[in-house]
Amino acid sequence: MNKIHEECGVFGVYAKEKTTVASTTYYGLFALQHRGQESCGIVVNDDGVFQYHKDGGLVNDIFTPEIMAKLGEGNMAVGHVRYGTTGASDRLNAQPIVVNHIKGKMALAHNGNLVNSYELRQELEMEGSIFHTTSDTEVISYIITKERLKAPSIEEAVNQAMNRIKGAYSLVVMSSSKMIAARDPHGFHPLCYGVTKEGTYIVASETCALDAVSAKFIRDVEPGEIIVFDGDEIRTIRDHIGEEKKHLCIFEHIYFSRPDSIVDGVSVHHARATAGACLAMEHPVHADVVIGVPDSGLDAAIGYARQSGIPYGIGFIKNKYIGRTFIAPGQKVREDKVRIKLNVVSETIKGKRVVMVDDSIVRGTTSARIVKLLREAGAAEVHVRSSAPPFLFPCYYGTDVDSQENLIAVNHTMDEIKEIISADSIGYLSLDHLGMLMGVPKGEGYCSACFDGNYPTEVPSETCKNRFECKLSERRNKK
Amino acid sequence: MNKIHEECGVFGVYAKEKTTVASTTYYGLFALQHRGQESCGIVVNDDGVFQYHKDGGLVNDIFTPEIMAKLGEGNMAVGHVRYGTTGASDRLNAQPIVVNHIKGKMALAHNGNLVNSYELRQELEMEGSIFHTTSDTEVISYIITKERLKAPSIEEAVNQAMNRIKGAYSLVVMSSSKMIAARDPHGFHPLCYGVTKEGTYIVASETCALDAVSAKFIRDVEPGEIIVFDGDEIRTIRDHIGEEKKHLCIFEHIYFSRPDSIVDGVSVHHARATAGACLAMEHPVHADVVIGVPDSGLDAAIGYARQSGIPYGIGFIKNKYIGRTFIAPGQKVREDKVRIKLNVVSETIKGKRVVMVDDSIVRGTTSARIVKLLREAGAAEVHVRSSAPPFLFPCYYGTDVDSQENLIAVNHTMDEIKEIISADSIGYLSLDHLGMLMGVPKGEGYCSACFDGNYPTEVPSETCKNRFECKLSERRNKK
Amino acid sequence: MNKIHEECGVFGVYAKEKTTVASTTYYGLFALQHRGQESCGIVVNDDGVFQYHKDGGLVNDIFTPEIMAKLGEGNMAVGHVRYGTTGASDRLNAQPIVVNHIKGKMALAHNGNLVNSYELRQELEMEGSIFHTTSDTEVISYIITKERLKAPSIEEAVNQAMNRIKGAYSLVVMSSSKMIAARDPHGFHPLCYGVTKEGTYIVASETCALDAVSAKFIRDVEPGEIIVFDGDEIRTIRDHIGEEKKHLCIFEHIYFSRPDSIVDGVSVHHARATAGACLAMEHPVHADVVIGVPDSGLDAAIGYARQSGIPYGIGFIKNKYIGRTFIAPGQKVREDKVRIKLNVVSETIKGKRVVMVDDSIVRGTTSARIVKLLREAGAAEVHVRSSAPPFLFPCYYGTDVDSQENLIAVNHTMDEIKEIISADSIGYLSLDHLGMLMGVPKGEGYCSACFDGNYPTEVPSETCKNRFECKLSERRNKK
Amino acid sequence: MNKIHEECGVFGVYAKEKTTVASTTYYGLFALQHRGQESCGIVVNDDGVFQYHKDGGLVNDIFTPEIMAKLGEGNMAVGHVRYGTTGASDRLNAQPIVVNHIKGKMALAHNGNLVNSYELRQELEMEGSIFHTTSDTEVISYIITKERLKAPSIEEAVNQAMNRIKGAYSLVVMSSSKMIAARDPHGFHPLCYGVTKEGTYIVASETCALDAVSAKFIRDVEPGEIIVFDGDEIRTIRDHIGEEKKHLCIFEHIYFSRPDSIVDGVSVHHARATAGACLAMEHPVHADVVIGVPDSGLDAAIGYARQSGIPYGIGFIKNKYIGRTFIAPGQKVREDKVRIKLNVVSETIKGKRVVMVDDSIVRGTTSARIVKLLREAGAAEVHVRSSAPPFLFPCYYGTDVDSQENLIAVNHTMDEIKEIISADSIGYLSLDHLGMLMGVPKGEGYCSACFDGNYPTEVPSETCKNRFECKLSERRNKK
Repeated sequence: MNKIHEECGVFGVYAKEKTTVASTTYYGLFALQHRGQESCGIVVNDDGVFQYHKDGGLVNDIFTPEIMAKLGEGNMAVGHVRYGTTGASDRLNAQPIVVNHIKGKMALAHNGNLVNSYELRQELEMEGSIFHTTSDTEVISYIITKERLKAPSIEEAVNQAMNRIKGAYSLVVMSSSKMIAARDPHGFHPLCYGVTKEGTYIVASETCALDAVSAKFIRDVEPGEIIVFDGDEIRTIRDHIGEEKKHLCIFEHIYFSRPDSIVDGVSVHHARATAGACLAMEHPVHADVVIGVPDSGLDAAIGYARQSGIPYGIGFIKNKYIGRTFIAPGQKVREDKVRIKLNVVSETIKGKRVVMVDDSIVRGTTSARIVKLLREAGAAEVHVRSSAPPFLFPCYYGTDVDSQENLIAVNHTMDEIKEIISADSIGYLSLDHLGMLMGVPKGEGYCSACFDGNYPTEVPSETCKNRFECKLSERRNKK
Repeated sequence: MNKIHEECGVFGVYAKEKTTVASTTYYGLFALQHRGQESCGIVVNDDGVFQYHKDGGLVNDIFTPEIMAKLGEGNMAVGHVRYGTTGASDRLNAQPIVVNHIKGKMALAHNGNLVNSYELRQELEMEGSIFHTTSDTEVISYIITKERLKAPSIEEAVNQAMNRIKGAYSLVVMSSSKMIAARDPHGFHPLCYGVTKEGTYIVASETCALDAVSAKFIRDVEPGEIIVFDGDEIRTIRDHIGEEKKHLCIFEHIYFSRPDSIVDGVSVHHARATAGACLAMEHPVHADVVIGVPDSGLDAAIGYARQSGIPYGIGFIKNKYIGRTFIAPGQKVREDKVRIKLNVVSETIKGKRVVMVDDSIVRGTTSARIVKLLREAGAAEVHVRSSAPPFLFPCYYGTDVDSQENLIAVNHTMDEIKEIISADSIGYLSLDHLGMLMGVPKGEGYCSACFDGNYPTEVPSETCKNRFECKLSERRNKK
Repeated sequence: MNKIHEECGVFGVYAKEKTTVASTTYYGLFALQHRGQESCGIVVNDDGVFQYHKDGGLVNDIFTPEIMAKLGEGNMAVGHVRYGTTGASDRLNAQPIVVNHIKGKMALAHNGNLVNSYELRQELEMEGSIFHTTSDTEVISYIITKERLKAPSIEEAVNQAMNRIKGAYSLVVMSSSKMIAARDPHGFHPLCYGVTKEGTYIVASETCALDAVSAKFIRDVEPGEIIVFDGDEIRTIRDHIGEEKKHLCIFEHIYFSRPDSIVDGVSVHHARATAGACLAMEHPVHADVVIGVPDSGLDAAIGYARQSGIPYGIGFIKNKYIGRTFIAPGQKVREDKVRIKLNVVSETIKGKRVVMVDDSIVRGTTSARIVKLLREAGAAEVHVRSSAPPFLFPCYYGTDVDSQENLIAVNHTMDEIKEIISADSIGYLSLDHLGMLMGVPKGEGYCSACFDGNYPTEVPSETCKNRFECKLSERRNKK
Repeated sequence: MNKIHEECGVFGVYAKEKTTVASTTYYGLFALQHRGQESCGIVVNDDGVFQYHKDGGLVNDIFTPEIMAKLGEGNMAVGHVRYGTTGASDRLNAQPIVVNHIKGKMALAHNGNLVNSYELRQELEMEGSIFHTTSDTEVISYIITKERLKAPSIEEAVNQAMNRIKGAYSLVVMSSSKMIAARDPHGFHPLCYGVTKEGTYIVASETCALDAVSAKFIRDVEPGEIIVFDGDEIRTIRDHIGEEKKHLCIFEHIYFSRPDSIVDGVSVHHARATAGACLAMEHPVHADVVIGVPDSGLDAAIGYARQSGIPYGIGFIKNKYIGRTFIAPGQKVREDKVRIKLNVVSETIKGKRVVMVDDSIVRGTTSARIVKLLREAGAAEVHVRSSAPPFLFPCYYGTDVDSQENLIAVNHTMDEIKEIISADSIGYLSLDHLGMLMGVPKGEGYCSACFDGNYPTEVPSETCKNRFECKLSERRNKK
């Protein structure tokens, strides 16, 4: 864990007639690839017949022309990209989940994490339910299915299910004839929708995916809202709106979302540049150049440069041919991985006092390595600035800050961290200024629990705190 | 459908300690490959931790050294080969099925077909169960899970489940710590077990798989029997034994099983040679040579030759580099497929009166094509003999004789068939002699429903008679 | 080296107009796959434009629909299957070789082995030629090219080249507008041609490939003959005919060629059955059943059975899903390989005195293993018969009997061999009867040098006797 | 052709002892991937034994762990990345070329293009040489081989060969025991070497590849210089130094090389920033923000911003998951390709007067598309600046500016171009300032023939001017 990972990106297409919904989804997922690189999937609905494919890997690699041809055309489609925690289960846990139940078929794509999935699963298992995956998405599909037995419609089943599932979820649900977008009452993760000039509706985790398919942004799905695409109609169910205060994950703006996306009305690029400007105010320094660590440190670096008046420079070239890079057995893996992917532009660095802006510092090992590269390239001084506050608490809402033991800020003072990464100075964005990224008062409308421990929901009570899979494995070990 | 297909082969390994159970399973499945070529899977149990891989394709192709390395070692394993009806669902419906339920994990491999799976599924769905596949194996896994809620052990859950599931099933069930083999009370499909000299127990569909892993055959699992491998103990549950009369699928001896297997005490090679001998007695002819259509007509041809005194010859060479053969768009596909795979040994045929023995005649198109090859090679006469009686009725127990409309014998008289395939004479094994293959009186101990319509169970009642998937698709279409 | 390997199979198509020559070649190569499984290639000539693909692997695996689509249509094509000695060079040495020279393009497919390739290559290298492969086919392409500089036509260049290249070669040469078939003056390896009913000419190593593409056999290419397909004309150049006495490799009949092929007028099946009959006369024994080791021992077994009157039986089932089988690290590889691929039909063997006919005995290890299988299955006696005489001498003409040290018959007496393979008796076909396979007097018309050391050509003079690659590697090591 | 392509990158490793030279080469090629994405290859020399692999595709995709394991260790290695013109020949023309000749083995990696390759090839063919590829690298290998017949050493053969081959070449040659780096007397393309702290020498097209393997830069190979790595010795042959005036391709600095490389003493990032500054001076404009088109327009944009005082902004986000992107049949391909790969950061653009800096304008279609994206995002004005002068002449030295018909500047006036791409103003870097990029007087030390037609060598004389393959295809068509 050098970087904090998001769990997922979701995408849905609702067309008026049979068309190339698979390739639209492909482009949407391609634009959302940064939200999950481990597996991906597309389900095409051709008038009630579901064709789908999902597998471990990148969208570009998995969806070959042959696979796309097999998916064919349809009037609806749902897609998903996922960050998975274990290699072995890439394919198994790939989404969307497709299930058959008494009232028909359903495909489900989910971004987020429930806090009561363990309890729900136990309850379901007590009733004899079986589970094929370790993902909480399967739990959600069960809950919806159970509600569907009593509810007059799939949307009402989703509405009822929202009384039972707790935590973070941005969902796209597809039945034989409808598409439904739903966002949890806290609005932990983004979800928006738009429309193309052909009148096709698009639901996506981020606006950059709307752009990628030339769809015009309509609006964000509100926290607690259910939007139903059905025939020519778009309905909204507002029963859960206002149930909770809004708590958009602030790390969406700091790191997860793409800078060209606009999340809940705020440009991600702007939020990051603002973070950089705040950093310049909080942690000024005399220096010759401000550089960002690609890719997500660049926006904040520009903010820092503008605010401080220190020139912005290109400090690193990132190798753009990313992907699985071969590591020779026995190599000092981490060291090489950094060097292979990042190289210093010595022209920018040599003999200079450098401000290096990164989006966050997790373990500190990567930062230490990058600082070393700068020093080797002749930097006179290196001042490290993090546009996120220190990580101190686990996240229960869909990102993988799950263990405190590797978090450098939990175990070390600022001075120690400075020492560990060999920086001349170090500065983190303060909690007090976090709200500025979204233009809101401190603590209003966002979740910053990973930084301050203020969880907007009850948190799972058991010892191996938070992780669902961890719970399952605990149970197994007891036997 | 030129050939009747079996649905599956199952295999299980129960070792006393951690060892190479994955490769043992690999070799077992490789030996059972003839029972299903569309998909395969292996689940390894390393002290309660399940690793598995399943995909569409042949054992040799799917289980690469990399995959085998990932599966690692364990103390138990279950494997499966499957014949699937549609390409799209190869991977989806691949077995073994692995499920998580309230009492732990379970892997399930199944050969056969339930006759009440539709009713069971509907019932389960009414309780809110969701289904990820269209296979009845998932239904079985639910039933066992539901019973497990009440039962004190997994074996008792299987025992109870057998009260509810009707039809043909040879099962291998693996829990965290036990392996269970179960065979339906009719004993439709074979199942046996043996032991290696290291004391590792092996369960397999056929004895040829025991041979492949150097295991000594112990005995066949009895119809209705449940065998539990648990610690150092092997227990047997006999509650369902004798519940029904035995009805081993006679087509196992005629075609499905490998000639080197011994099924329920009868050598398959011997059964086929006996069929050939019966044919020689029922349908004698003056001829110069007896040839078999490779591979499964060869044994019967030897029986015919020995009984008749007409010399046995090698009439065809079958290309041994089988696999998916490229067919140029626009070719006369079937014609070419036969010619590419079979070639006549003209030395054996030219100017000769030939008796050609095949295992069965389904549509007649392949037979017609083969007779044509013989005539082109200069055969003076061609007398066709089928070591199976005419197919007249659909099978509900796990083979794919599911539609009468393509069965040549349903729609044509013997004379017409002779004409269609251009034979000089034609002869089928009679129903009266079927029992001789197994050394039993007529109608005792075997199922010959596909030939005579005498179904040993109630059969599915609805219109689109028999096929589960067909039922599901009907339901969908009604909506 | 458990089996002796052939080096190659060649195939050519000459159509009057643009058509599916690629798929015709595909089927031809598929039928010739037994002559070489390591690599394959197809070159399509569409009015002077060459498209080609070659790679390591089986025809079915290499030539996917995508590759076939890329090859497109044409009016000519040449194909090749190859047995290669080292894995690494599979792709490199794959044929046909395609070269550009001053007078245009040329594709070349070669079956055989030159005895003076080292000298020719040295000569060429002294003139500055560079070599991309280690195959003597590249040497031939150079020689033809050099001659082409002086010759008025490609066929005359081939004719002149035949003055310089010595040894075994069956060639198919394709220029922009012509196809040429050429066979060395000894006629070491087979080559024939035929025509389809559309008037397309086919050149192939064996008649079974003509059958596979529904071509009518016209005749064998004579030793020393060059046949030119040019426009509507078929010309023959007879300058080298009669230059040498015919020396068809007798092992073509014993093992290499498919039993359904007719090589130089003699049915391969018939030759093998004759070998079996000779064995029965030379090495009679009291026994209960005669079985053959699949696949190439079956024909001789039938011959033995008929001659001796001992019943023929099916003793083994060979797993038909061949291909690269996974071998777990640390396994007793060879033992397992035999067991995985062959299983005994115990019904045939148990308690019986068995005559087991195999095509040859090379190292003896496989034979020993097979005998052991028979004994485990309860054979009372096992009498081994080899339808080839003992291998005693290296082959310089295109098969890989290249090292005497592993040949069991070089190092052991008959009694010792009997002991090593645990047979009750052993018998090889005698040299005196070899001619009977082809219906010719002893020593007339065939090469049996690997059995008797009578080489029809000068043999390479240097120490590391025979193998070209060996020579090259020697040279390298001297440096 | 939306972008001008470089043909190749070369890399060599010379270690004192057997080590992981393959993975070193892998990392070097990975860093040079921008110089060629169509194919790649690595040849490992383990004490005279060459193992190699080359294929069409990216380094990351081609060199799997399995392939790397096969390559093994060695004391030397040569690698190559290539931009190829046709898909079909990716694999065929992949480099390094490995040849066997009279004095041993040779591997050859080449970046550049000869101007007399056609004449040399014709001459060689007249002597009977055959060619397996259409690349001029094979011509070079012949010339060196022929010289080697007379020369006492491989380095002297290279030295003599340099009298005959004309044009652009940066070569790495590997024999059994030596590695040789050679650069043509004009020094068209870069070549440098360095050393690791273990004493392993590295030769590479660019310094970024030295950085990637932690090698310290020693110096650039001089135009005309031959450097010989032999035992513990590094010798230099200076016979061809000074033979010609230096003519480094100026487009290396503008576009080809990576900004973190230092080519012939000049930082590529610095050269580009200088180009941007010159543009700001030559083509000033009132604007609100300066943005660069990723990736290679960014450096020049920073130069423009600094010189002009207009703030630098991040205008685009480039999707970093590049690779072959699926394009649905029937789509407006080019439009979508731009939109899928680039998205506007509307925050930066909306309502702003924008200066958009790109590295060059080739056809104009991509520029037009990007301008359109900016306008859709609300740009008030778009001023396009190209940091390269207009392309007007074909290149004969290894880049693919080979046809004038698609070059927008050949066929249109500045005003027309402005109109075509819908810019508010347009400005190209002038020829007069090109020298400033390298800090040299106008026309001194660089080749700018593609901009001004001043070719430093004779150019190929025939009609279908320049391209070797084109010549070959002409010849074929004449027949």
